[in-house]
Amino acid sequence: MESNILGTNVITQIGILVHDIEKTAQTYADFFGMEKPQINQTDAPELAQTEFKGESTAARAKLAFFDMGSLQLELIEPDQQPSTWREYLDEHGEGPHHIAFVVGGLQEKVKIMEANGMPLEQKGEYPGGRYAYMDTFRDLKIITELLENDE
Amino acid sequence: MESNILGTNVITQIGILVHDIEKTAQTYADFFGMEKPQINQTDAPELAQTEFKGESTAARAKLAFFDMGSLQLELIEPDQQPSTWREYLDEHGEGPHHIAFVVGGLQEKVKIMEANGMPLEQKGEYPGGRYAYMDTFRDLKIITELLENDE
Repeated sequence: MESNILGTNVITQIGILVHDIEKTAQTYADFFGMEKPQINQTDAPELAQTEFKGESTAARAKLAFFDMGSLQLELIEPDQQPSTWREYLDEHGEGPHHIAFVVGGLQEKVKIMEANGMPLEQKGEYPGGRYAYMDTFRDLKIITELLENDE
Repeated sequence: MESNILGTNVITQIGILVHDIEKTAQTYADFFGMEKPQINQTDAPELAQTEFKGESTAARAKLAFFDMGSLQLELIEPDQQPSTWREYLDEHGEGPHHIAFVVGGLQEKVKIMEANGMPLEQKGEYPGGRYAYMDTFRDLKIITELLENDE
């Protein structure tokens, strides 16, 4: 594999799956003495264009972000539609799901990773950018998320 | 609970449990284009004074640290002795185990957390400091590690 395929090794997010984001976000806020952040839902399917394992899915999730130093801790409460979030939560229970990296040239990086045995799990659009969850579990023992933000 | 009990919300480490640290450390090094770090073993029991669930344990682990932005990603391969590492690895398989925070007044913070239903899981000494793993899983959906470094 070429040297540093992602072009970065800066972890920008840790994503944690939860059953009840309102409750857990409040607990984080209380524990760390922070404001409880606004909880947002990912975009509707026609905007998010979410694909899970190569198929279009209507899956959405509620998200809450906490600034924890130079990175964000992201709480994720998925709905019942098929997604990496739902599958992982059903299989593993609540807990950490991924680490994220901001990259350029997301599509090309996805292709290189897939050619190296790290399949694309899920992708979608968010306001101002797009993401790809890569199944790096076999190699890195954690799922990685690539984030590409528009200029 | 008082406001920001830890006195910080800066995540300094993400700890990931692995079966084969040599192999996974090499994979990280290759993937991120970094040098494979030296793999160190935690101190022997008489130095580490490790306690797991209130009892002295001879458990040790091999550790590898990667700088990933402002925080470290820590790979942990535990031995077979009783520890939070061994227990979590046996129960959950490989994957993320904890996030860490550097604190002052570790012993006092452990007491306050215990009084708030977050039990001390494991503690021990390392060269230049000490650590405590707190079972914050019920509340924060991840284990937290407190690190206290000597001046």
